Amino acid sequence: MLKVLKFGGTSVGTLERIQNVANIIKKIKDEGHDVIAVVSAMSGETNKLIEYANTFSNDPKSDEMDMLLSSGERVTSALLSIALNEQGYKACSMSGRQAGIVTDNAHTKARIELINTDGMKDAISEGNVIIVAGFQGVAQDTNRVSTLGRGGSDLTAVAIAGAIEADVCEIYTDVDGIYTTDPRIEPKAKKLDKISYDEMLELASLGAKVLQNRSVEMAKKLNVNLVSRSSFTPEVEGTLITKEENIMEKPVVSGIALDKNQIRVGMYGVTDKPGIAASIFTSLADNNINVDMIVQTVGVDGSTDLDFTIPTTDFEACKKVMEKFKNDAKNIDYNDAICKVSIVGVGMKSHTGVASKAFSTLANENINIRIISTSEIKISMIIEEKYAELAVRSLHEAYELDK
Amino acid sequence: MLKVLKFGGTSVGTLERIQNVANIIKKIKDEGHDVIAVVSAMSGETNKLIEYANTFSNDPKSDEMDMLLSSGERVTSALLSIALNEQGYKACSMSGRQAGIVTDNAHTKARIELINTDGMKDAISEGNVIIVAGFQGVAQDTNRVSTLGRGGSDLTAVAIAGAIEADVCEIYTDVDGIYTTDPRIEPKAKKLDKISYDEMLELASLGAKVLQNRSVEMAKKLNVNLVSRSSFTPEVEGTLITKEENIMEKPVVSGIALDKNQIRVGMYGVTDKPGIAASIFTSLADNNINVDMIVQTVGVDGSTDLDFTIPTTDFEACKKVMEKFKNDAKNIDYNDAICKVSIVGVGMKSHTGVASKAFSTLANENINIRIISTSEIKISMIIEEKYAELAVRSLHEAYELDK
Repeated sequence: MLKVLKFGGTSVGTLERIQNVANIIKKIKDEGHDVIAVVSAMSGETNKLIEYANTFSNDPKSDEMDMLLSSGERVTSALLSIALNEQGYKACSMSGRQAGIVTDNAHTKARIELINTDGMKDAISEGNVIIVAGFQGVAQDTNRVSTLGRGGSDLTAVAIAGAIEADVCEIYTDVDGIYTTDPRIEPKAKKLDKISYDEMLELASLGAKVLQNRSVEMAKKLNVNLVSRSSFTPEVEGTLITKEENIMEKPVVSGIALDKNQIRVGMYGVTDKPGIAASIFTSLADNNINVDMIVQTVGVDGSTDLDFTIPTTDFEACKKVMEKFKNDAKNIDYNDAICKVSIVGVGMKSHTGVASKAFSTLANENINIRIISTSEIKISMIIEEKYAELAVRSLHEAYELDK
Repeated sequence: MLKVLKFGGTSVGTLERIQNVANIIKKIKDEGHDVIAVVSAMSGETNKLIEYANTFSNDPKSDEMDMLLSSGERVTSALLSIALNEQGYKACSMSGRQAGIVTDNAHTKARIELINTDGMKDAISEGNVIIVAGFQGVAQDTNRVSTLGRGGSDLTAVAIAGAIEADVCEIYTDVDGIYTTDPRIEPKAKKLDKISYDEMLELASLGAKVLQNRSVEMAKKLNVNLVSRSSFTPEVEGTLITKEENIMEKPVVSGIALDKNQIRVGMYGVTDKPGIAASIFTSLADNNINVDMIVQTVGVDGSTDLDFTIPTTDFEACKKVMEKFKNDAKNIDYNDAICKVSIVGVGMKSHTGVASKAFSTLANENINIRIISTSEIKISMIIEEKYAELAVRSLHEAYELDK
């Protein structure tokens, strides 16, 4: 098999950990597989370089930031290659450029345009383990080094796996897979063997931080089998994220997610003016504020209330926008003592009664649901924040996720 | 004028010092010059990376060391560019590859084969200050990053100045030029305004550490006007190293050099066997031992003595080689309590009496000369180490170098 492995900053955070990664690669190589490993900078390095840059400028040019920040991954790739060579394994570090990664010209947040895999294929046919400096490529027009932004090394790994048609892309972090819910809240949470891309996307956008949406989306698009596993317990099989068709037994519910970083915005007694809601949400979007759940209710007296949620990080920006609409409602208030509990599962599509079980479970615990939104594979509910953990545990039990 | 500037590790050793270098460049740019600056890694960075590599291997692959070590210069180039941008100056960092530097394939000690200056010329015509990451290029066959070895950033600067036909190449260090002798020994030592390439080469090989021979040789070959000056006192004009023809008033003696890192090897009563000396020196050369001064004397009794000097660093290797010849002499001894005092000056060619003044000056101080060797522009003498400083001071005075 041809395996693409990705090791994040924590996995290569010290020289001992780089040696540990070398041992993981050796074992996989000894099992007869070909290996391309994508590495991040040693943890802390990138932040150190950003601090350096900020002593000179609050707004450094993006192509210079790329020149600066791309160096950390190069260092890790060379060190890991040296560690493998020393153990008698042929290895070869490659920068993004050498690995054939061409991006657009949006420095610091470039998108991969194409990967010329010839160099990597040659190196593999010569028996090399390839160690690619993650997070970087070369901008197609300027021929300068570019970086892919946050999560860029994951993206590098997935894109390479897709371009070179690897059998699997294993993302090593410090957690050993995807769980039915956060084990810190529900100790009975179980690691999933398999999960579909769409479920993973829902869980990730709901706060499961193991994999970022950009990488999962790319894996889905390129049909890459993604595995989430840990470099600290490499003997534990991780979670495979794959096509829905590859999952034989589709559970009705795969996981429960909790997001406490939500603020509920309430507009009461909204002026009866055509298009007012549209103009509010356009304004919010123009200011890059992510509106999540929206409910509009018309009271018996004909007055309209508008409720929606935003991420806590957008709070200040949102207040500024809402200031413009203060004359369009009797009252606007903000509530951050709320949270979003979500139930995710592909099996929902073909099963009825999933939502009603959620509602009755929470009702049994006397938890009021303020807003509900559903998609084909997800039910999200806004509740009071103080009930967050209780809600997660009761739902986890109700759907028998600990079994 | 087009100026190539080079700033070494000490000059860019901290963020404050990088800001200081930005200020130097701004001033030169404000005077109306075009600037290409070549930078080293921040001092300590390269050694840190070497230590990292050595935790994994005592003998890391040279191309991986190049991938590893080239990162430090890239960091400095980006930071300096960011500092200049912030002050409103257009600047653009370039890796060795981006600057068009192509080397042979001898990783960690590559030689520059050619420089394609198109990219730099374009960037300058767009009004940029170019900041080149020194010490590196791209290996012509493998297309991988290569480094030039010790003094590589100086070489980068000189080679660029030659290729792009710059008006001057200024090497900034922590000393403000070339002195008539080491000011720590003779406080009356004077900074030279100008010195010829050949004199500089002699002084450098005699221990003046400001500029390395490889760079001076390349400057001579490419006809580059080299200036040695300090980034800590940029208001002080440095020393121009140039063609002899460019120096109108040629001093008879330009400087006095002292080298204490010498060991004298004595072979007494050497067997009267044809070719024995040749075979000794061939053996030493084969083991990369730099033999400097050689004297062979035939005693009244017909026995032959052979004296020569080697650098202290080659002592162990030399003893090993000499072991093979122990039956070819009555006695072999080693003396490290000696030093080499040298007088350098292009004017010697056309002046007589320079050597005899040296001999009489030392004789007046009761200093015995053990070995003498002369070239067109240099007289070197081996004396007892305890007289080193006295000899330097008396010669400095005898040739009126303090005037």
